[in-house]
Amino acid sequence: MAKKPDRLQTIIIEHVEPELDAGRYPIKREVGDRLDVSADIFKEGHDLLGAVLRYQAVDESTWHEAPMHHVDNDRWAGSVVLTRNIRYRYTIGAYVRGFETWCEELRKKHGVLPDLTSELLEGEAQVRAMLERATGADREALESWLAQWSGAPDQEARIAVALDEQWLPLVHRNEERWAWTLYARELEVVVDRVRARYSTWYEMFPRSQSPDPNRSGTFKDCEARLSYVRDMGFDVLYFPPIHPIGKTNRKGRNNSLRASPTDPGSPYAIGNEHGGFDAIDPSLGTFDDFDRLVKAANAVGIEIALDFAINASPDHPYVKTHPTWFKHRPDGTIKYAENPPKKYEDIYALDFYSPDWPEIWDEMKRIILFWVGHGVKIFRVDNPHTKPVPFWEWLIREVQDLHPDVIFLSEAFTRPKMMRVLAKAGFSQSYTYFTWRNFKQELTDYLIELTQSEMREYFRPNFFTNTPDILPEILQQGGRPAFKFRVILAGTLSPSYGIYSSYELCENRAVPGTEEYLDSEKYEIKHWDWDRPGNIRDYITRLNAIRRDNPALQELTNLRFYQADNDHILFYGKSTEDRTNNLLIAVNLDPFEAHEATLHIPIHELGIREDETYQLHELLTDTRHLVTGGTYHLRLNPQEEPAAIFLVRRWTRREQNFDYFF
Amino acid sequence: MAKKPDRLQTIIIEHVEPELDAGRYPIKREVGDRLDVSADIFKEGHDLLGAVLRYQAVDESTWHEAPMHHVDNDRWAGSVVLTRNIRYRYTIGAYVRGFETWCEELRKKHGVLPDLTSELLEGEAQVRAMLERATGADREALESWLAQWSGAPDQEARIAVALDEQWLPLVHRNEERWAWTLYARELEVVVDRVRARYSTWYEMFPRSQSPDPNRSGTFKDCEARLSYVRDMGFDVLYFPPIHPIGKTNRKGRNNSLRASPTDPGSPYAIGNEHGGFDAIDPSLGTFDDFDRLVKAANAVGIEIALDFAINASPDHPYVKTHPTWFKHRPDGTIKYAENPPKKYEDIYALDFYSPDWPEIWDEMKRIILFWVGHGVKIFRVDNPHTKPVPFWEWLIREVQDLHPDVIFLSEAFTRPKMMRVLAKAGFSQSYTYFTWRNFKQELTDYLIELTQSEMREYFRPNFFTNTPDILPEILQQGGRPAFKFRVILAGTLSPSYGIYSSYELCENRAVPGTEEYLDSEKYEIKHWDWDRPGNIRDYITRLNAIRRDNPALQELTNLRFYQADNDHILFYGKSTEDRTNNLLIAVNLDPFEAHEATLHIPIHELGIREDETYQLHELLTDTRHLVTGGTYHLRLNPQEEPAAIFLVRRWTRREQNFDYFF
Repeated sequence: MAKKPDRLQTIIIEHVEPELDAGRYPIKREVGDRLDVSADIFKEGHDLLGAVLRYQAVDESTWHEAPMHHVDNDRWAGSVVLTRNIRYRYTIGAYVRGFETWCEELRKKHGVLPDLTSELLEGEAQVRAMLERATGADREALESWLAQWSGAPDQEARIAVALDEQWLPLVHRNEERWAWTLYARELEVVVDRVRARYSTWYEMFPRSQSPDPNRSGTFKDCEARLSYVRDMGFDVLYFPPIHPIGKTNRKGRNNSLRASPTDPGSPYAIGNEHGGFDAIDPSLGTFDDFDRLVKAANAVGIEIALDFAINASPDHPYVKTHPTWFKHRPDGTIKYAENPPKKYEDIYALDFYSPDWPEIWDEMKRIILFWVGHGVKIFRVDNPHTKPVPFWEWLIREVQDLHPDVIFLSEAFTRPKMMRVLAKAGFSQSYTYFTWRNFKQELTDYLIELTQSEMREYFRPNFFTNTPDILPEILQQGGRPAFKFRVILAGTLSPSYGIYSSYELCENRAVPGTEEYLDSEKYEIKHWDWDRPGNIRDYITRLNAIRRDNPALQELTNLRFYQADNDHILFYGKSTEDRTNNLLIAVNLDPFEAHEATLHIPIHELGIREDETYQLHELLTDTRHLVTGGTYHLRLNPQEEPAAIFLVRRWTRREQNFDYFF
Repeated sequence: MAKKPDRLQTIIIEHVEPELDAGRYPIKREVGDRLDVSADIFKEGHDLLGAVLRYQAVDESTWHEAPMHHVDNDRWAGSVVLTRNIRYRYTIGAYVRGFETWCEELRKKHGVLPDLTSELLEGEAQVRAMLERATGADREALESWLAQWSGAPDQEARIAVALDEQWLPLVHRNEERWAWTLYARELEVVVDRVRARYSTWYEMFPRSQSPDPNRSGTFKDCEARLSYVRDMGFDVLYFPPIHPIGKTNRKGRNNSLRASPTDPGSPYAIGNEHGGFDAIDPSLGTFDDFDRLVKAANAVGIEIALDFAINASPDHPYVKTHPTWFKHRPDGTIKYAENPPKKYEDIYALDFYSPDWPEIWDEMKRIILFWVGHGVKIFRVDNPHTKPVPFWEWLIREVQDLHPDVIFLSEAFTRPKMMRVLAKAGFSQSYTYFTWRNFKQELTDYLIELTQSEMREYFRPNFFTNTPDILPEILQQGGRPAFKFRVILAGTLSPSYGIYSSYELCENRAVPGTEEYLDSEKYEIKHWDWDRPGNIRDYITRLNAIRRDNPALQELTNLRFYQADNDHILFYGKSTEDRTNNLLIAVNLDPFEAHEATLHIPIHELGIREDETYQLHELLTDTRHLVTGGTYHLRLNPQEEPAAIFLVRRWTRREQNFDYFF
């Protein structure tokens, strides 16, 4: 049988937005964002309603309130600016504005029904009820109101006193919120620091940073390379695993099964007699070296990001200290990580279905906190889609409850729903399919999904142009022009993007028929010539400066696609909400041939009149063009400039701005 | 801090459909329906998954299971036929098919890796685990499988034994469902009897059914009118309130404030010294008369529906017995029902915010159950949107828990979200905006919303052509042609529809400038001439026979609109899921002029070849047309036939069906 409610909550509050899966997962925002919340709010009958957005940071015990207002068709909206890097709760409360409901009724009857004595008594009773709750000055004010009320010479005068709007603030402060109803759920928003949304990543292997081709690189060498990274405009420097590397079944060059004695092995096969996930490969240096590097990086505005790869080599200390954390077969052997028929003979996977899984969870949390203790606040997580989703949800929340400024990047290249649920479960940023989206329709479709579907509430893309595992076909075949326009796409479509080092050198030699780099850095130490001819360091530097100077490029959901009448030319724009920074970007997606198109400039969105002359300031080449009206013809030659980033500049000075005009 | 889960449930089950507001409200179906359920189901890694739809009637303690299958992109689907008129729960369970995951791995490695000894041991261990759980014949079968396994002469033979699919049913019966995960919510579906979806209503005032113009009608007179109602094809006969009518402030003819001594008053002002909601107006007869009428109606396939109007006249017994159920003003008077500045001086509204509201709820339940005791299973509820929604949710559930066959029709003409939430809260059927949707685009938009949006899961429209309160403008102005096509629209667009008596007489005299009937039956006793010239009884009879003979018209969500190249001609169709009954309907929405259009027949949906000749059998006029191809030209003259209902008939007999052909 149904139960009667304990208390009548008769206002319907439903279809709250944003809300993910009925509040199962939090949405995400960044510090300084305005959170807009809307809902259907209504009640039987004709009472006037009020509604408030209620919110609190999770370390607060009381709720704050922001007013909500009726928009249309029983839809209400309100907002709050999120000022702290912490998790907030939010929900909605609604109530009947009793006194104003009465005023409305009185207004409708006034002049229609002659005798309103009984109505006026009802209103007076409401004011008396307020008086009972009021204190101090409000109490005096209510008394004076009632005195005017009873002192009024006739019904007309009494009505005037009752309906005088000057009393409404007093009413709002003192009246009982009648039929007070709370939304059924408390929702959550994770408020990250801005870098969770806007970040520029450079990935490099520390062991390849030696200026001396006869020895491997160290953290000290990395320190010397910081100015290179900073000067290009990157603010996150990400290292693949820096831990001791296993010796058993160590991989040789180009992923061969036999390593020579001098091969360093894959850094993803973690652990040997020097330690595991919480140790440093001795050839890279000491903890002191690492700590000094972190400090030096921070001093020039760069954060060090570490890889979190839960891969144990057969030599990892856990194999001996915690044998139950691995899956043993009936013959006593431990299973290698595998994706049949592929085997990773240098890696044991931890068994997350071990009866001792709670110990594994705790240990992984300890490892993350260990590195946080060494100043690392950004983790790129390797293959999260091969570990249980509830583990990540727990781990990220545990860490962020202590350190809300920690950022986790999900390296999941897998089916779409798994990628999404990892983001919902807590990952701050996510790798994407950008790597394989090359042409106009597929880029448009994917970006609309990322920026306009529900994903916008929780999935922050990080567009990597390449990774040590992925040298995309378009770069292999398109060469330098492709390297140029792909980095422009990455850096202007998404506020977070990254390159794996050697991208700036347009390195594009692959193992034939694959997307693997030839002589992959995963299995050998490289000594790159950073000044190699044909490099695009200056080009990337320019892009990153444009991103830094133009706040519109630091946002995701402001992306809009516009019409360019050529299937090879992608045309899109980003503006800040206040319209003070407006960018239009055109990219020739064909690395082989020049294309031209008429761009349809969204002058109405930009507030430009049909007959107005404005300036398109191309920022990569620093050239300026005067345009009148809504079309602009453009030719993009991949051998010269495959992309254009226009800052829209209006002429705002008029004769009226001149002091002597008047 | 986050808590670790008590048990690892690592399979993600999300985006279950159908699901209303995260399970806050039940969906609705009817007995015999197949419930299709789908969800995103996936897990980390590469394990093969299984999933089941779990369901139980609320009076059952164990769950039934129906298999779900993978559709595409991690979407799974399953279904169950709902056979009982009761509320069901449903949810989803998913698990890893451990043995088949192992088989898959073995298949991938077979021929690639030479030594699979360790793999085969793993599989054998799984079979041994099954053996531990198995009993009886399964136990023996598993033992014989293991014997074959160990008796196999070599690895190849052992692999063949392991992968032999004949063992899979045995595996499915005995293997542990590994990583068993339940969806977070149990959802509900209210399974009503079919009449909740498919019903044909006739509304009449019992007091107007007297054949003698000198006295008011009685239940006995109603009994005599049953054959008239049945012959036209109606199966629900709905009476406005039959209770004693108040005398204080009784309304006179045409809603005048002064009643003459002979005026009967509005039946919506309920209660006098003869009783209230659970009494019968003595002028209509006795409970014996009523019970006899109910039985006589049932005997000819008609159900009596009563009005449930929570309006107390100032003379209702509650006013004395339960004064706290009414809102008293400071001067001691009770407030009339009002919609300022309109007042209903003959009605007191019950105060659902009285501190004694739980008593009111219980009493309303008692009233409904009282009438259920007198054989009434259908209630048309007056103005539900002026009472708290939680009250209806509780009341309907309480009643249906005892009597799942009770149907509630919501008479809410109000804003769209309130209409929807009343349906979600439990109303079986709902009045709609059909009354005011006249033209092609607005009819199409509204019907698409009703049949294709989420509303299809919970909102069952009942298209009334008119009510005692509403004589729509189109009928006032369009006359007999409008009466004809509006009833065709009502009866073919919606499986439930109704007319208020006198519709068949094309009665269309209104109070000028309003949608009120002139000399409204609400305030006086009428003596209609049911054989009045120009009546459309035969036309409605034909429509209802067509509805009865064609199951496609007894469904809602099968409605599809098709192209007719004339803005005044609406063209749509309905088919049964098995395509054995296919109807196409064309209606001229202009009551004044003839229009013609080319209809684009959906031959591909109907499975008709481009060159095939088929028959359109027009059912209102019983005329037949041969058509070849996808277009058909039609002219509809409102003075003759404003609408056409085509049954699509294919020629299925071929020479091959003839015995001697071969």
